[in-house]
Amino acid sequence: MSQIYGRVALIGLGLIAGSMAMAMRRAGLAGEIIGYARSAETRDTVRELGFCDRVEDSAVEAVKGADLVVLCVPMGAMGPVAAEIGPNLGKGATLTDVGSAKQEVIKAVGPHLPAHVHFIPGHPLAGTEHSGPNSGFAGLFENRWCLLTPLPGTDPDALARLASLWRGMGSHVEEMDAEHHDLVLAVTSHAPHLIAYTMVGVADDLRRVTDTEVIKYSAAGFRDFTRIAASDPTMWRDVFLTNRDATLEILGRFTEELFALQRAIRTGDGEMLHDYFTHTRAIRRGIIEAGQDTDAPDFGRGRSEDE
Amino acid sequence: MSQIYGRVALIGLGLIAGSMAMAMRRAGLAGEIIGYARSAETRDTVRELGFCDRVEDSAVEAVKGADLVVLCVPMGAMGPVAAEIGPNLGKGATLTDVGSAKQEVIKAVGPHLPAHVHFIPGHPLAGTEHSGPNSGFAGLFENRWCLLTPLPGTDPDALARLASLWRGMGSHVEEMDAEHHDLVLAVTSHAPHLIAYTMVGVADDLRRVTDTEVIKYSAAGFRDFTRIAASDPTMWRDVFLTNRDATLEILGRFTEELFALQRAIRTGDGEMLHDYFTHTRAIRRGIIEAGQDTDAPDFGRGRSEDE
Repeated sequence: MSQIYGRVALIGLGLIAGSMAMAMRRAGLAGEIIGYARSAETRDTVRELGFCDRVEDSAVEAVKGADLVVLCVPMGAMGPVAAEIGPNLGKGATLTDVGSAKQEVIKAVGPHLPAHVHFIPGHPLAGTEHSGPNSGFAGLFENRWCLLTPLPGTDPDALARLASLWRGMGSHVEEMDAEHHDLVLAVTSHAPHLIAYTMVGVADDLRRVTDTEVIKYSAAGFRDFTRIAASDPTMWRDVFLTNRDATLEILGRFTEELFALQRAIRTGDGEMLHDYFTHTRAIRRGIIEAGQDTDAPDFGRGRSEDE
Repeated sequence: MSQIYGRVALIGLGLIAGSMAMAMRRAGLAGEIIGYARSAETRDTVRELGFCDRVEDSAVEAVKGADLVVLCVPMGAMGPVAAEIGPNLGKGATLTDVGSAKQEVIKAVGPHLPAHVHFIPGHPLAGTEHSGPNSGFAGLFENRWCLLTPLPGTDPDALARLASLWRGMGSHVEEMDAEHHDLVLAVTSHAPHLIAYTMVGVADDLRRVTDTEVIKYSAAGFRDFTRIAASDPTMWRDVFLTNRDATLEILGRFTEELFALQRAIRTGDGEMLHDYFTHTRAIRRGIIEAGQDTDAPDFGRGRSEDE
């Protein structure tokens, strides 16, 4: 693949930035990759790892002359970073981000950008439970979706160029309205994460079930929750604070539904439970048919390693 | 390994019975395996699959002369089956089951058994989202726990023999009080399952997020829930009806906790959220250290197949 941007600046150097740098290098998508992270320790680690051509000690230095700037910091930090680098962004440069909620990022970042910058918010649906500069890998975005939520009036060429970059890193790219994005993500990711965090917290809090037992016998359901609940605390705090309304709406629906099922258990309404569970099975079939997962009988057994 | 039981009767021929038959055969643990299922179609399928030496058309015929009888039917059917076969169980035979809740099984099954039978309730913590006679495989129990919940006064030799059988099929065996078992399972399996069912139901019900989108963008958290929520509806209906009290207790705690987190989101209490999420991470580390899962960075990416 040929080069898409001459100079790319990555602001924030965790899992996503590291994986982007490796994926861009592998496919030759960027002429030069400049990095910046707030923590000196992270900057040193990345200098050692070598996935950037250069690591700068300030965000302002890092974005100078960049054709593409990618905000890879937690969402709570995006507004302040944009205020700092805004005046230093070159004419015709594109600024994008990788945050999990788009409306708040648009509100926080947009006002700080000069009119000559193409601001195209984005969200790669990819990640692991690991975080930090050591956790990236070139294949992270392969066959994963990247959702772009361009504002009205976005330059079509700048948009097409950014989409090409994501495709070059292996992603499928789709455009979506920011508000709709936030609702879809609240359902498919944010509410499930909060629920998993909650369940793991409950288990830990129960004094009558020793920690050892919860851990020892966790194969059947709970283990999947602990995997989700091990995700980066800072990122997820910011997800819930920035996608607050949509997440609370879905959680409200969830609680309502949970109460209905609890009531069925309490009253012994087996028919209601059976119908409900039969119905949810169909969604799973849909996901398998959509190629988002496989039909291999491994639930409750772990992944590849213990098959 | 040498033979542990001369004749084993499996009542109910789904995922667990099929896997037991294959695992027993592979290790030569049983002289002869007899099967029975209520549905004629299932019986014919199993005759074709051949994982039993003989499939009988009645439960009474199947248990005649058996040294070990294993109830592998949904828990709601265990009482009636026990009433039917009880009078036909031989002196010194052992009867066990594979149900997910133990107190109710003991209540439902115990009264139907003659005094000369060793009744040792059991629960292999193994399963997949698939069900039926076609879904079994010999390795299902390997490195999984099997919990036995013997009643006071159980014959130690009969207990040791049953434990050997499970070990021969690859399981780690542990003994536990039935009440404690039910609480541990409510935390590690039953409540998480109900929660997953609920979340998948909510997603399906949301008209503003089309089914296609929920399925398409389901990589990040929700997909794990759909996997759990695809489990056998009949089995899970019976789990919730039989382990009702412990499940409702845990769900009550869960709701309380969820409300506290919702409140933190609504009021913007980032510190509370961050502390909570940091804490739940530690549990995950414990599970990895206990060898119940691996540290491979595959969350949100699927299992072995798409790595």
